Amino acid sequence: MSIGKRATAEFFGTFWLVFGGCGSAVLAAAFPGVGIGLLGVSLAFGLTVLTMAFAIGHISGCHLNPAVSVGLLVGKRFSGKDLPAYVVAQCAGAVCGAGVLRIIASGKAGFDIAAGFASNGFGEHSPGGYSLLACFTAETVLTFFFLMVILGATDARAPKGFAPIAIGLCLTLIHLIGIPVTNLSVNPARSLGPAVYVGDWAVQQLWLFWIAPIIGAALAGVIYPWLASEEK
Amino acid sequence: MSIGKRATAEFFGTFWLVFGGCGSAVLAAAFPGVGIGLLGVSLAFGLTVLTMAFAIGHISGCHLNPAVSVGLLVGKRFSGKDLPAYVVAQCAGAVCGAGVLRIIASGKAGFDIAAGFASNGFGEHSPGGYSLLACFTAETVLTFFFLMVILGATDARAPKGFAPIAIGLCLTLIHLIGIPVTNLSVNPARSLGPAVYVGDWAVQQLWLFWIAPIIGAALAGVIYPWLASEEK
Amino acid sequence: MSIGKRATAEFFGTFWLVFGGCGSAVLAAAFPGVGIGLLGVSLAFGLTVLTMAFAIGHISGCHLNPAVSVGLLVGKRFSGKDLPAYVVAQCAGAVCGAGVLRIIASGKAGFDIAAGFASNGFGEHSPGGYSLLACFTAETVLTFFFLMVILGATDARAPKGFAPIAIGLCLTLIHLIGIPVTNLSVNPARSLGPAVYVGDWAVQQLWLFWIAPIIGAALAGVIYPWLASEEK
Amino acid sequence: MSIGKRATAEFFGTFWLVFGGCGSAVLAAAFPGVGIGLLGVSLAFGLTVLTMAFAIGHISGCHLNPAVSVGLLVGKRFSGKDLPAYVVAQCAGAVCGAGVLRIIASGKAGFDIAAGFASNGFGEHSPGGYSLLACFTAETVLTFFFLMVILGATDARAPKGFAPIAIGLCLTLIHLIGIPVTNLSVNPARSLGPAVYVGDWAVQQLWLFWIAPIIGAALAGVIYPWLASEEK
Repeated sequence: MSIGKRATAEFFGTFWLVFGGCGSAVLAAAFPGVGIGLLGVSLAFGLTVLTMAFAIGHISGCHLNPAVSVGLLVGKRFSGKDLPAYVVAQCAGAVCGAGVLRIIASGKAGFDIAAGFASNGFGEHSPGGYSLLACFTAETVLTFFFLMVILGATDARAPKGFAPIAIGLCLTLIHLIGIPVTNLSVNPARSLGPAVYVGDWAVQQLWLFWIAPIIGAALAGVIYPWLASEEK
Repeated sequence: MSIGKRATAEFFGTFWLVFGGCGSAVLAAAFPGVGIGLLGVSLAFGLTVLTMAFAIGHISGCHLNPAVSVGLLVGKRFSGKDLPAYVVAQCAGAVCGAGVLRIIASGKAGFDIAAGFASNGFGEHSPGGYSLLACFTAETVLTFFFLMVILGATDARAPKGFAPIAIGLCLTLIHLIGIPVTNLSVNPARSLGPAVYVGDWAVQQLWLFWIAPIIGAALAGVIYPWLASEEK
Repeated sequence: MSIGKRATAEFFGTFWLVFGGCGSAVLAAAFPGVGIGLLGVSLAFGLTVLTMAFAIGHISGCHLNPAVSVGLLVGKRFSGKDLPAYVVAQCAGAVCGAGVLRIIASGKAGFDIAAGFASNGFGEHSPGGYSLLACFTAETVLTFFFLMVILGATDARAPKGFAPIAIGLCLTLIHLIGIPVTNLSVNPARSLGPAVYVGDWAVQQLWLFWIAPIIGAALAGVIYPWLASEEK
Repeated sequence: MSIGKRATAEFFGTFWLVFGGCGSAVLAAAFPGVGIGLLGVSLAFGLTVLTMAFAIGHISGCHLNPAVSVGLLVGKRFSGKDLPAYVVAQCAGAVCGAGVLRIIASGKAGFDIAAGFASNGFGEHSPGGYSLLACFTAETVLTFFFLMVILGATDARAPKGFAPIAIGLCLTLIHLIGIPVTNLSVNPARSLGPAVYVGDWAVQQLWLFWIAPIIGAALAGVIYPWLASEEK
């Protein structure tokens, strides 16, 4: 498959991740009386990945996340020469997905993008008011385990065909744990998408959501291959 | 399999989609104190498709949705000569499913069909008061991605046997995002079912729930085959 | 496998269905502030079947339900000579499961079995006050589709290995629709279990939860084989 | 695979179980207005096992639980000489997982570890005030069925590859039933993790969460092999 088509698949996939995940948060989480809550948002984020992994996994591998691409690179499952195209496509998809979501969300009287638009944040912009240290720790640890699951579930010895379920539901689990802490990223592109429209603090705090997930992912890219290697 | 039996399978399947999906909304969403909410309704809609895709996928392909049939036609996965029988069966199933649901719902004192009966709507009939533009955009974009997932998950290169899970949970995801916008259709037959009994605005607004999903589906029917084709 | 071991497997499986499904309803549904609600109870009932179908499907077929056994008999998937042992084991498992649940539930001050103990009922004992006609219709239609999914998902042409997921999540879906109507049975043994301890109205109303599910199941046992048969 | 790597995999897996399961409870269960509730916590516990079983099942078998290791030992699926290393690694993972969770949870003003930190308890420390007898019965019966599902779903005759789904969702089901009773353990290591930091009653009551799960697991290790054995 050409790098152009693979990057286009990453564009559509990351569009869907941000549009669907952030969309459920912005449109449906707090709907009066019957809102889906953080549980529904967690399920939505996970299902964007589960569905896309079945739909485009055979085209691009369905990373949808620069930290995942880096983790797979470190774990020798992905080629460094494809990294720039993947990351650009992921970021473009995230920004476009958030943009279309903004068009829909704006169709309701009283919509205020300054309310956060599902951006990630720490300290005073953490949903639960968690400190920088807590937020950095959470993003690093959660991305580490996300990559452990991705690397393990796509190992040749794991059951065939189930990786999209394992990986998608792992993202659901990660959100069940951490939305109150950082609104949950583990994905630099997902953080970038809404931040572009919110500006201000959402852009200023973006650095954490690039650095912490990439550190966690790279660590798993080192540890999993060691752990899973057979002794001679 | 004869077209008669395949259309009968579509009838039963679409009956189940409308009876189950709209049924959960009408009967259980707002049950005092322990209601299932929009999250439960989203799960119910998705599970009608997941269960039927395992039950009748080998008979009719389990479209249950005129927009899906059109998208598959454009993507060259379905034959145009079968389209009329499929669409008629889907619409008949939806109307009968909503009819049986009405019998059950009427068995509770105070049931008022004019409260909406899970019909789809926009503008003043959008659950969250979303504008026509927002509703049209949401239905088009969501159906586009629904068909991308359907076409991708049933691609010969995707894992075998998992398509019902991918497609059913994609419908759950779509509802997690969009119930507040249009009460969520992405399916002209599903919109038709309850509208027949509600009449009035529910019928007048039906046009959007035929046009937008079919545009989104047809678009995916063009884009997915291009994206997934191997270069020579 | 001997009929004795197969019936013992049905005993354990139906114990689990009633203990787990009714247990989630009695112990956790309305826990203050963070209760699992009808959505959690629906998930629990479905997961009892999903888990047992993977655990004992290869031993007894995992019916756990006299209506399922009858539907499979009518559909020529099950032998009439095994029916009595299966039904007796299912009823015994249900009664024992409800009995152990009672021991646990009684360990909290203020437990009152007369509050219902997750029994099924209609009319004034319907959770939402639904009429006899509505309750009979709901149980018949829901069991019909339950058997359609069971017969379809275990068809030789359906994807291999997925039937426990399809069937378990179908039971979840059925509960998402109908708990407010009858507290949801589609299973005569499940209705029997708690009714034995509640007595009174719960026993007097048991007839509906034997007759309606068996009618619905038998109907599917006739229709599915016709629908799925290839023409010569 | 060397016992060292297998034990390391158990360490990471049990870390994830405690960090993720208890983390969802401590951080997100009661988040104002949109908290995930006991349903979300149940899903989180189950998904820690589902994801790790796909990720490390091919390395260590993914027990993550001393009671599981004992049950598999009794059922002749696991070697006694590996038991000590597995149990030590599971306990260490649980304590470390709870420790990292504490770092994150402490990042919010007002965090009080004495509020329970997701520890298990009975009697006055049962979330719903359940008696010792009720709590002992619940932990024993639930672990018994957990092991029945583990032994059944990994039986050579069960569908291949699905065991992580069956076992993970079984743990979700178990939590849906029993969180109000004991805050739900069925896993001595999971109980140990937070208790180390809470001290006091959480440590004093630990005995029940070692004894009851191990009794239930051992019982299943005897009964399942008998039930599933073919007659000559």
